[in-house]
Amino acid sequence: MSSRKKAVVLISGGLDSATIMAFARSEGYELHGISFDYGQRHHFELQAAEKVCAANNVASHVVFPVDTAIFRGSALTNDIDVPHNRSDDEMSGSIPVTYVPARNTIFLSIALGLAESLGAHDLFIGVNAVDYSGYPDCRPEFVAAFEAMANLATKAGVEGQKIKVHAPLITMTKAQIIQRGVELGVDYSLTHSCYDPSPDGISCGECDSCLLRLKGFADAGAIDPIAYQN
Amino acid sequence: MSSRKKAVVLISGGLDSATIMAFARSEGYELHGISFDYGQRHHFELQAAEKVCAANNVASHVVFPVDTAIFRGSALTNDIDVPHNRSDDEMSGSIPVTYVPARNTIFLSIALGLAESLGAHDLFIGVNAVDYSGYPDCRPEFVAAFEAMANLATKAGVEGQKIKVHAPLITMTKAQIIQRGVELGVDYSLTHSCYDPSPDGISCGECDSCLLRLKGFADAGAIDPIAYQN
Repeated sequence: MSSRKKAVVLISGGLDSATIMAFARSEGYELHGISFDYGQRHHFELQAAEKVCAANNVASHVVFPVDTAIFRGSALTNDIDVPHNRSDDEMSGSIPVTYVPARNTIFLSIALGLAESLGAHDLFIGVNAVDYSGYPDCRPEFVAAFEAMANLATKAGVEGQKIKVHAPLITMTKAQIIQRGVELGVDYSLTHSCYDPSPDGISCGECDSCLLRLKGFADAGAIDPIAYQN
Repeated sequence: MSSRKKAVVLISGGLDSATIMAFARSEGYELHGISFDYGQRHHFELQAAEKVCAANNVASHVVFPVDTAIFRGSALTNDIDVPHNRSDDEMSGSIPVTYVPARNTIFLSIALGLAESLGAHDLFIGVNAVDYSGYPDCRPEFVAAFEAMANLATKAGVEGQKIKVHAPLITMTKAQIIQRGVELGVDYSLTHSCYDPSPDGISCGECDSCLLRLKGFADAGAIDPIAYQN
């Protein structure tokens, strides 16, 4: 039995969650990864999550299936086209077409259940309000409200062991996240960000997620180690 | 297309949720039921939920599977014995053995996702703080915190269409709930409450849930229309 404090880390396989897992590891937590299979168009993200967990020597990693039938109206899970080559202007200011209803609420809630069953009081999530300002559930006020709710929802909270939702990337730019990750030794070659990869998993280089990633590496003065189609 | 306001109603098949569904119907909502298959010991509850939804002419009813692997440590989903014939004293004051970590948080979060996908802003949940005082996520302060969080988590909230979590039974006794249900015409013969029924679905009459139900009907001066083994 480890005597280290346990943390539940939400790990998508993207670069933010890989950074957050390295961050939690650097703080000395025993790591428990949780990923969600919510009917993504492809499974490269979940394969990346598995690799990132292995690279961080997690104590456990669970993939939780979330039935996608209720997630109607999102380009990530149905047949609406993923937009390509949108400008920064087009990406900001409105709710993106890739929005999944209540996604972070659902994912954090299930992670909270896992935390309670493990006796963990710390959740780590790589949400970011800067590059994805259109997602209501990526904002600091959402994370604070979830944490307040979690402390009223659980045995741990009731018994005075405060549940903490750590989201240290939330006000960082993509470039700052990558710089921090490089300092922490994150191997970004293991991560996957593309919404629309080739059948063999090569990133398109043109969807919103690829564009933000590429701009982040460029702004950070770092080299993105993954391959791109374009 | 109905022009009525839509409501998402969490329906377990127990008497509280049957009452809440009748309550929502009486307020004129178009009803959308959501139940959760979280590895209950038996499926009589979900069959009851289906019957209650049919009796209320719901516009839709979905059963959302929740992987039980993370719900360790609860008598409802694993091999810990369900306690029989506990006194009121034994039932109150401590977290019950049937506690499922973060259950209402998870269920409400998924219901919130469904609400957002339907364009509904009203959730109804039959939680009750009086008879189940040991569950942190059955208290008014939890429901209020969830509602506050939901309004920060969702497009509807961001756009100013307030999400409302209705929990009108929360401070009622079981007897008061039953009295209200009888006024609303709830057919309690369709409902199931027992944690430990016989293989053909007959309630034991001795588990915490049966004891609370039977006491509720007795205190309400009403007849429980279901059969019991004992």
